[in-house]
Amino acid sequence: MSNPKIVPVILAGGSGTRLWPISRDSLPKQFLSLGGTRTFYQQTLLRVPAAGDSVTAPIVVTGEDFRFFARRQAAELGIDATIVLEPARRDSAAAIFTAARIAAERYGEDSLVLALAADHLVPDVELFRDALLAAAEVAAKGYIVTFGIKPTEPRTSYGYIRTGEALGVAGASRVDSFVEKPDAATAERYLAEGYLWNSGNFIFPASLMLAEAERFEPAILEGVDAAIGAAKTDLGFIRLDKSAFLTIPAKSIDYAVLERTKKAAVIEGRFAWSDIGSWDAVRELGPVAEDGNVTHGPVSLLDSRNAFVHSEGPLVTGIGLDDITIVASDDAILVMPSDRSQDVKNLVAGLKAEKRNEANEHIRIHRPWGTYETICRGDRFHVKKIVVEPGATLSLQKHHHRAEHWVVVKGTAEVTQGERTYIVNENESTYHPVGEIHRVANPGKIPLELIEVQTGSYLGEDDIVRYEDIYNRA
Amino acid sequence: MSNPKIVPVILAGGSGTRLWPISRDSLPKQFLSLGGTRTFYQQTLLRVPAAGDSVTAPIVVTGEDFRFFARRQAAELGIDATIVLEPARRDSAAAIFTAARIAAERYGEDSLVLALAADHLVPDVELFRDALLAAAEVAAKGYIVTFGIKPTEPRTSYGYIRTGEALGVAGASRVDSFVEKPDAATAERYLAEGYLWNSGNFIFPASLMLAEAERFEPAILEGVDAAIGAAKTDLGFIRLDKSAFLTIPAKSIDYAVLERTKKAAVIEGRFAWSDIGSWDAVRELGPVAEDGNVTHGPVSLLDSRNAFVHSEGPLVTGIGLDDITIVASDDAILVMPSDRSQDVKNLVAGLKAEKRNEANEHIRIHRPWGTYETICRGDRFHVKKIVVEPGATLSLQKHHHRAEHWVVVKGTAEVTQGERTYIVNENESTYHPVGEIHRVANPGKIPLELIEVQTGSYLGEDDIVRYEDIYNRA
Repeated sequence: MSNPKIVPVILAGGSGTRLWPISRDSLPKQFLSLGGTRTFYQQTLLRVPAAGDSVTAPIVVTGEDFRFFARRQAAELGIDATIVLEPARRDSAAAIFTAARIAAERYGEDSLVLALAADHLVPDVELFRDALLAAAEVAAKGYIVTFGIKPTEPRTSYGYIRTGEALGVAGASRVDSFVEKPDAATAERYLAEGYLWNSGNFIFPASLMLAEAERFEPAILEGVDAAIGAAKTDLGFIRLDKSAFLTIPAKSIDYAVLERTKKAAVIEGRFAWSDIGSWDAVRELGPVAEDGNVTHGPVSLLDSRNAFVHSEGPLVTGIGLDDITIVASDDAILVMPSDRSQDVKNLVAGLKAEKRNEANEHIRIHRPWGTYETICRGDRFHVKKIVVEPGATLSLQKHHHRAEHWVVVKGTAEVTQGERTYIVNENESTYHPVGEIHRVANPGKIPLELIEVQTGSYLGEDDIVRYEDIYNRA
Repeated sequence: MSNPKIVPVILAGGSGTRLWPISRDSLPKQFLSLGGTRTFYQQTLLRVPAAGDSVTAPIVVTGEDFRFFARRQAAELGIDATIVLEPARRDSAAAIFTAARIAAERYGEDSLVLALAADHLVPDVELFRDALLAAAEVAAKGYIVTFGIKPTEPRTSYGYIRTGEALGVAGASRVDSFVEKPDAATAERYLAEGYLWNSGNFIFPASLMLAEAERFEPAILEGVDAAIGAAKTDLGFIRLDKSAFLTIPAKSIDYAVLERTKKAAVIEGRFAWSDIGSWDAVRELGPVAEDGNVTHGPVSLLDSRNAFVHSEGPLVTGIGLDDITIVASDDAILVMPSDRSQDVKNLVAGLKAEKRNEANEHIRIHRPWGTYETICRGDRFHVKKIVVEPGATLSLQKHHHRAEHWVVVKGTAEVTQGERTYIVNENESTYHPVGEIHRVANPGKIPLELIEVQTGSYLGEDDIVRYEDIYNRA
């Protein structure tokens, strides 16, 4: 019998408000790069070995709102992922049971599900893969294997694992117990006693997870099975059934299974790892200058030390800063003592309660066909920069209250205006009066960039009548 | 003989980097409002009694770069000021000697020059005018009268005046001595001993100031007289002669005259006053919330006290702040402990040394005809919002490397294109290919707003050939 297949499952449904204002509900951290070249989701996809004899194509579990990010960012890497859409957030147990069931159906009960968070950082892929090989060997013997991480310092923001009996594979042991985030003194003790950080990434046989789900959380599994049974395929996405999914209790996989099963094992990963769970964690990634400052983007500090400044927009300057964290985007700034980074989620909750747009939305809005952003807003006008991806097409639409001027500044536009379809090249413009049915597509090979100047008495996004839409939004 | 005339002189040449990033060299604080309705310069113009029998029209002394601000902001108030342009910064002695000479020539040797800084705040105009009446009475007797302010607290950021012999007018006395900015303990003592703050605003007979200038600083006066003698009038501005003016030593009026003359007097002003010399001074203007926070603009603070946050752009959020100052504009942010506000000038000096554009320039650039700002910049394109004031006309120009699309979003444009001149209304557009000679004017009664999309391989401001310019820039 051949070895069981490894089925990579990327859990990419998180909302990531703890890295606000860079990460927001509308575009959370797994789909961001924080200044790197690949997003965390892409880095996760590239971390697993390429699909082949022993590894299948990845399955991505994510939310409805993120479906086009998940597909586009995988496609940029040439990866054809199966994308499963959860109709609501139900924490990790539902997502992992779903993945286990789909893996079992597609690749057999024995297949090994490698469940990876889409928003963790593992800089050394080779060391991760070494751990993966050992972990798969243990999992195949009938264990749910957690990737534990040898701590480098007494962190209080991570859960820990106390290891038990060795399992005969280098670095592998049974889990004696999972322990919650400790206080500083306890963390010191854990470090001294050889506890491992619990990374929240696992590998397990699909059949074993389903059996444990049946045993400990039958209601969750039942809801998952019903949601898969009534799932629909829409533009290639697997859309789980909403009414079935909504019945599922929200529970983390730790509480649902890992802390209760007798089959928990851990592999000691010796790779560097971060859950990037707060700005403090981003700061730790460095690089650290001589004065202890860590700066990303346009920053100028005077007489400051141990400051962390991350700007993806304005120039950030500081005088006399000590252990202060500053994060800046074009429309929102966050300033706090660095030890308050766990409170960002509370701040964002407050902004949501105040119904502040900046709590959830970015200036740049993502759509299936590309992006747009407002670059200027006036009394009776509104200027946007629109980027249409190669091959993409906006809906055939009209507006009741606004006229639109389009100037193509890069690439080639195929414009439909009433009955006519024609090409608009770089440095050419077109005009759509109120009430005219129109559409733009990018027939080219590079992104199409255009400047849209809207004028009219009402300029809300909801003044749109869609006639046809290749993304099923009409 | 009638009473001598009061000649208001507004000193508006300061660069004001201490309120960076809101105030910058290209548009310093006297021409800003910091969120109020009138700029500080306009408030200063409105502080002096209107021109009439005893008060003349104001004379404004400012720099070349600020001439259109000075004129436009005065015109908004219906005030026709004489605007004198210094070709370089030479500190206050040169400016005050210049004003004294011009006042003497125009209104007689006995005229009383009221020299006011354009960037101070005096909320109660009536109390100021009461002090002015008393000060004028003393000045007419042959004194250089400083407005002293009764201190409300032991400030270390102001110079102090020790009063001497009473002069028989309520609140007026000779100056015993001027003293430099004290340390905290000395400031407490000054407060207890009845010293006054030195506001740096004066009234004096023109002839007396010129006599003292002749006596103490003949070189400065000689340079001033030469610069006035060879001055040119340009579009109504009095442009002092550059080569003469450049010979003048830079010296403050305090060092040049006030600390040396026997004719120094002081009037005790009982009006509230601030030199708005630092962010700390702005913070003092309040209003103060219950937790001690002072916030202006879009701000949301969690668990913070005694914070000062002033935003003229992005949403600024903070967690756990204590005595922190944050100032935000669209392109630059400043964060510092509030007691470091005296160091902002050093920070800005560093930014200038790094040749950072944000050190001097705002996003919105002012021109004689109105303003423009870049709202989007791309690889081979550049989008600007342009505002043309009613009656204003841009230069007749062409560009070698860029084409321009204009969309009128508000008001009416008169566009010249080659030989043709025509009107472009709201929601209409026009196009200027590379090399075409063109011009835009606003023939209307409201500001003209247009969106300009430039495309081309070189988009620098210096790609402009001007054929005609009503502002003498061709």
